[in-house]
Amino acid sequence: MRAIQLAPALQFTTKCPKPTPPAGEALVRVHQAGICATDLQLIKGYMEFQGNLGHEFVGTVEEAEGNDHLKGKRVVGEINAACRSCPTCKAGRLTHCPNRTTLGIDRRDGAFADYLCLPIANLYSLPEEISNDQAVFIEPLAAACRILEQISIVPSDRVIIIGDGRLGLLCAQVLHTTNCKLTVLGRHEEKLNLLRQQGIETTMQPEEVTPGVDIVIEATGSPDGLKLANQLIRPQGTLVLKSTYHGQTTFDFTSLVVNEVNLVGSRCGPFPKAIELLKRTRVSVEPLIHARYSLDEGMKAIQHAEARGTLKVLLTMD
Amino acid sequence: MRAIQLAPALQFTTKCPKPTPPAGEALVRVHQAGICATDLQLIKGYMEFQGNLGHEFVGTVEEAEGNDHLKGKRVVGEINAACRSCPTCKAGRLTHCPNRTTLGIDRRDGAFADYLCLPIANLYSLPEEISNDQAVFIEPLAAACRILEQISIVPSDRVIIIGDGRLGLLCAQVLHTTNCKLTVLGRHEEKLNLLRQQGIETTMQPEEVTPGVDIVIEATGSPDGLKLANQLIRPQGTLVLKSTYHGQTTFDFTSLVVNEVNLVGSRCGPFPKAIELLKRTRVSVEPLIHARYSLDEGMKAIQHAEARGTLKVLLTMD
Repeated sequence: MRAIQLAPALQFTTKCPKPTPPAGEALVRVHQAGICATDLQLIKGYMEFQGNLGHEFVGTVEEAEGNDHLKGKRVVGEINAACRSCPTCKAGRLTHCPNRTTLGIDRRDGAFADYLCLPIANLYSLPEEISNDQAVFIEPLAAACRILEQISIVPSDRVIIIGDGRLGLLCAQVLHTTNCKLTVLGRHEEKLNLLRQQGIETTMQPEEVTPGVDIVIEATGSPDGLKLANQLIRPQGTLVLKSTYHGQTTFDFTSLVVNEVNLVGSRCGPFPKAIELLKRTRVSVEPLIHARYSLDEGMKAIQHAEARGTLKVLLTMD
Repeated sequence: MRAIQLAPALQFTTKCPKPTPPAGEALVRVHQAGICATDLQLIKGYMEFQGNLGHEFVGTVEEAEGNDHLKGKRVVGEINAACRSCPTCKAGRLTHCPNRTTLGIDRRDGAFADYLCLPIANLYSLPEEISNDQAVFIEPLAAACRILEQISIVPSDRVIIIGDGRLGLLCAQVLHTTNCKLTVLGRHEEKLNLLRQQGIETTMQPEEVTPGVDIVIEATGSPDGLKLANQLIRPQGTLVLKSTYHGQTTFDFTSLVVNEVNLVGSRCGPFPKAIELLKRTRVSVEPLIHARYSLDEGMKAIQHAEARGTLKVLLTMD
């Protein structure tokens, strides 16, 4: 079958063997996949991953031993495959299983291929209302929804999202559903415009944001974004870190102590919540699609995704 | 009156004018004061403070206009004098008032003197059961109690306190009251021995602590302590920062995000809770007293407090 893979160099191949699902796993034929910032980091060596890339996908189940009702179902899938037997899993923290493999990220072939395997427990079948274009956003949208599982946001809260990249735009739409006093601080007029069309306040001027913000979401992954977040947050406020940072970052921890700031790391989130938001059309993801390529043109697609200011680039397998 | 002050150099004086309390404030005659790590940092230039040092004290009210019932009462006092009229104060975050002055730390003369002034609202009168020796520990003990206001600790939680300094030892005793599975990681046999006598588990070997800890309290204020805390914490665990850090610290923020760690800055705490713990003899503070000096010998007392391994040094005014 075809695949875009790290072997360890990035390559397109037509000679990747079609996988055979191990016990408890399903074989999924991939229809579409999204290229994510994490994929671009993996290409640069993050995690030293080798194998087929890709973790944002929609596909159809071809095999699911013992679960025939799933066959032919259109699905998305949670990317962390937990062992379900270690103390961390037994404590309910499946996404943090120390033995986990992660689709297209850590010791598990991913979705930039004609087929992939995932544990049956990871799959969610999709309602008809959700298109394939929407479905590839469920994984990052779930990550945005994770914020609402971790902290409480009420309408009187003043909330700032720093960053107008893919994840920032999804976080903005998810947090907008809480009716909080939300402002998105970004750098790209046309991206922020997508939010303004939905009634979300935006600005490109950090100095326009009055400090003393109740909740700040840092979605840039840059030390400057982190520093700015720390300047804007109010005493006893909550600072959510939604992006990873390259290497070590220098930071003024004393201000966290003196101001009693609560800093919350935030990663993967609830698929059912993301599916529900799309089904109820509470979020709009299609405008984030900047380009689509067939899997055969995958190398070109990745180049496009790497270009500054690009939002979502899709790969189509069908 | 006598005072140990930064003017801006550290000096002992007998010529400090006795203060006149402004409206809403009491005049307190100081009996005893404790030298704290923050005092030593202030001497090194932290906060660029000028004035009488000292914020851990016990004294007797001599004047309290409109509050005659307080006259002659033995008191301790919360160190942050808030404006009580700004939005932060009105939101109930008095200790974070941006207009606050802080006793012996920020634009307010402190307790290493025969007299001090504090807002009447900041004072707590002491029950007879609490001695002057115990009372000087109420301020740092309240700071330790702050942890229990910020996070929930249950008996099944495995908790590590890193640091066996003054604050670490107080945090240990406060957290021990929750019946959690507590271990204190320190470097000084005789300090840890004070805790072992109370049935608190201790170790001097970081490698003896199994990672995957539910809650870590960082009480060293050193980058190494912070790094170790980050290595020991479990995914979705809570890391409490109880000490301030000198300057900028480099840190791996990506691990906070990937492991969804909750990092909580923690500062001043509830005096009534600390008074209650002492009254019920749930904590033992007298063994932490390493030396006592008269205020006249205050310069020597500070030298003693600066010596490595010293716990509490007291200044006596009477």
